[in-house]
Amino acid sequence: MGAQELTGRCVVLGAAPVLMPDKIKSYIRQDDYIICADGGLRTAQRMGIRPDLLIGDFDSMEQPACRPAETITLPVCKDDTDMMAGIKEGITRGWKRFLLLGATGGRMDHTIANLCALDFLARQGMENWLADESNRATVVQQGILELRGMNGRLVSVFPFGAPSCLLSYEGLQYPLCKESLVSVEPRGVSNRAVSDLVRITVHQGPALVVLSDEN
Amino acid sequence: MGAQELTGRCVVLGAAPVLMPDKIKSYIRQDDYIICADGGLRTAQRMGIRPDLLIGDFDSMEQPACRPAETITLPVCKDDTDMMAGIKEGITRGWKRFLLLGATGGRMDHTIANLCALDFLARQGMENWLADESNRATVVQQGILELRGMNGRLVSVFPFGAPSCLLSYEGLQYPLCKESLVSVEPRGVSNRAVSDLVRITVHQGPALVVLSDEN
Repeated sequence: MGAQELTGRCVVLGAAPVLMPDKIKSYIRQDDYIICADGGLRTAQRMGIRPDLLIGDFDSMEQPACRPAETITLPVCKDDTDMMAGIKEGITRGWKRFLLLGATGGRMDHTIANLCALDFLARQGMENWLADESNRATVVQQGILELRGMNGRLVSVFPFGAPSCLLSYEGLQYPLCKESLVSVEPRGVSNRAVSDLVRITVHQGPALVVLSDEN
Repeated sequence: MGAQELTGRCVVLGAAPVLMPDKIKSYIRQDDYIICADGGLRTAQRMGIRPDLLIGDFDSMEQPACRPAETITLPVCKDDTDMMAGIKEGITRGWKRFLLLGATGGRMDHTIANLCALDFLARQGMENWLADESNRATVVQQGILELRGMNGRLVSVFPFGAPSCLLSYEGLQYPLCKESLVSVEPRGVSNRAVSDLVRITVHQGPALVVLSDEN
């Protein structure tokens, strides 16, 4: 798959309810490699997108009559969720940049598991984002996250899978300089960007960064 | 406030979107003490409930013309979310059992912060639950959580604010006996109750327990 692997992106589309398919579709680029995790196929069909790969146990839906380019059928009894199985298959195929859609809302168990999946990708040094109608999120293991076009937007940071994280912020209303945030007192919530460029340095993570639209 | 404090429950109602107010109202008992956190008042009004206390900075809504029994106005610039301020005020007033409603959905930053708030309560030995249209969740610091009327229901467990937790389960399809779950591989997701009584023992936490309705 060559050079495409280095620059391209793998979108894994889960089965969570999508209220605004046009908004979700706007996140997808022409050259994304699209994996549907089980019921995520329904969302792809609503968006008029033909996935490159369908993976799932099909315990909650029939296998589609009109199949995508390729289908992998998983056993119903397995350790991984369909979303995680899709991510692992994407990694096996050489992708290093991931966007999860259809990953939040409805079933909270799946939402939390999908945030854990971001962490799973982060620990392997992979670009990981999740997006829904109102939010984008990524886990940063360690290093610098630069975000542009941010002025006025809400930015939240939480320790993830750890009791605390050590952070510096630039470009936010409440800046931090090598300060610790603890999970039990979520004081990194709903900060606001005061410049176009926001720089979040995670000295010690993992940190979950959430960009939310205002109501 | 005497004996009521020991047996009663404090409901903190947040501003997250409530799609099915009748379902949310069904969680509330006649003798609950109800705190509305800022925009949570709108949900209370939709449910026809007059709160005992309204607390907030009112940055996203006007102070209501028809006020609840009591109102506390917070500064707009503060470390705590309105939900956390409501919880802390409830603790100050002596409550030890909490249910958070209007706490999930829409703004993911608030959803995550509200899960952290469950942990905040758990660490003080307090009963803590959060509920929405499809899910109930609680954080267990250490000890035994017994759940009844569970047969066939989905039960998920995740480490929370920690890289791992040590668990035993009884009454679930995939039982555990003093086994470790790690945050980065969410294998505690979507287990299923096979008996009416489910017993989750958290030997080392915190653990987030999520009960989800099926789609």
